[in-house]
Amino acid sequence: MEQETRRPLLIVGSVAFDSVETPQGRADMALGGSASYAAIAASYFSQPQVVGIVGDDFHGHHMSKFHDHGVDVRGIESVAGKTFHWKGRYRENFKDRDTLETALNVFQHFNPTIPAAYRDTKYVLLGNIDPKLQLSVLNQAKGTDIVAMDTMNFWIDTAREALREVLKRVDILFINDEEAMQLADEWTVLGAAESIRRMGPKYVIIKRGEHGAVLFGPELTLFVPAVLLTSVVDPTGAGDTFAGGFFGHLSRGGGLERENLAQALTWGTVMASFAVEAFSVDGICRLSPRVIAERRGSLIDMIRYE
Amino acid sequence: MEQETRRPLLIVGSVAFDSVETPQGRADMALGGSASYAAIAASYFSQPQVVGIVGDDFHGHHMSKFHDHGVDVRGIESVAGKTFHWKGRYRENFKDRDTLETALNVFQHFNPTIPAAYRDTKYVLLGNIDPKLQLSVLNQAKGTDIVAMDTMNFWIDTAREALREVLKRVDILFINDEEAMQLADEWTVLGAAESIRRMGPKYVIIKRGEHGAVLFGPELTLFVPAVLLTSVVDPTGAGDTFAGGFFGHLSRGGGLERENLAQALTWGTVMASFAVEAFSVDGICRLSPRVIAERRGSLIDMIRYE
Repeated sequence: MEQETRRPLLIVGSVAFDSVETPQGRADMALGGSASYAAIAASYFSQPQVVGIVGDDFHGHHMSKFHDHGVDVRGIESVAGKTFHWKGRYRENFKDRDTLETALNVFQHFNPTIPAAYRDTKYVLLGNIDPKLQLSVLNQAKGTDIVAMDTMNFWIDTAREALREVLKRVDILFINDEEAMQLADEWTVLGAAESIRRMGPKYVIIKRGEHGAVLFGPELTLFVPAVLLTSVVDPTGAGDTFAGGFFGHLSRGGGLERENLAQALTWGTVMASFAVEAFSVDGICRLSPRVIAERRGSLIDMIRYE
Repeated sequence: MEQETRRPLLIVGSVAFDSVETPQGRADMALGGSASYAAIAASYFSQPQVVGIVGDDFHGHHMSKFHDHGVDVRGIESVAGKTFHWKGRYRENFKDRDTLETALNVFQHFNPTIPAAYRDTKYVLLGNIDPKLQLSVLNQAKGTDIVAMDTMNFWIDTAREALREVLKRVDILFINDEEAMQLADEWTVLGAAESIRRMGPKYVIIKRGEHGAVLFGPELTLFVPAVLLTSVVDPTGAGDTFAGGFFGHLSRGGGLERENLAQALTWGTVMASFAVEAFSVDGICRLSPRVIAERRGSLIDMIRYE
């Protein structure tokens, strides 16, 4: 959050319109997608560069949310057709989510091309997209320092071989607890994390929603609880926001030392807590560094044991 | 864990035989009950005094598990008839539990009488029993310093008025997350805790199973994650064990200061982690102080953020 030169961080993922209904209300055709959440969250820490694809229905006022946060959008390709649209509904108490519609639209032909200006970027976050595309991004990038990726059950089910290939080439995997157990065929979080680490990533960060996140690394286990909230409006994008905040901090250059990873976990957690307090990316837009730091202070206080 | 004079801690609750089937195996007619787990867990920190009831099928080798841990059993009444028997089965991954049989037996006539020798005990833990009995215990006790209680959905459903009366008279409530939300009619843990604190208890400790526990107090929120385990054998009694470890530490006399409460949370958590690694009370029997302290060290290391 210091007034430092922001370092570049390449984020590849989806840019979408989401229509979401929750017990707290609804949003229609609002900015969503893994890259959108991650980039806006990361913008408080670093200089995100987004590679994605949108249709000709993606207008200037949508793009302005990126501009407002200094996100570099030269890698967002605009083509004829409609932008990826996801429609979903959260049931009572947000315990279950139904996908009502997934219209990939222009996203189904997404073939990420990394602009020349981004190819030397040292920090790369591969959002939750087809593992084949994640591999293609890695093949275009030169001399990365740290690569992180996110994935989900859909790719575990349908593209496990390609997923295993990407896993060999990344430093950090973000994954939720159920998906980790599915990928590893283990039934405890600890067992799953150990198994996945043997597949490649030195660090596995298991997201557990309202129950926080656990980072597993060499001789290292770090736990961070979620921020306790009295109101949740829309959980969509919380995981992407977490990844953006975490990796945004990491791309400031502190390396993979314990203390820096612990800090990254807290920034990711705090950004995710803001995300769920509003629809779309509204919860993480135009936050002041002071508000973010204050919430992080309360979070750390909750686990201050000495 | 120091070689100190152990202070007395009065525990009132059930002493039972449990027959449990889990994905890891089964146990038949093994020692169980809220007071059993809590007392053995507390014995590593203080001098538990148990008030409970058993039938004439409760033999010397059952009682010896209490004797082995220096638990004072003069308050366990033995009467003609059968001991409380609970039979249950945990389904795959321990996510759901089916109660197959609850035979209250002699427990249905339980009317706790606090032996004269226990009436001045300053620390009282009211295990998960009928709130009317919890009230009766409080009416017999003289000059308590700290009173803690546990409860469950059954009493929230069937004895809410009596439960509200007990709540007015206790300092600490242990309750799981779903039950807290049910009692408070709130849908977030934070909202539920705030609401319950207005009902009486200055401190509410919300147990979240494998996701840890959160303590809410005046201007105070403390979070402790559960110990990460690769093997769970039987979760029965984990909550009672947590309460026993927590309150066992507290009854050493450190008071309700933040640091002491934080320590109590870690001891409760660590004791619960041992409990679930075996059937019945086997996981918490004959532990060495070194083994307990080592596991606590790993737990604290996982949330050491500075």
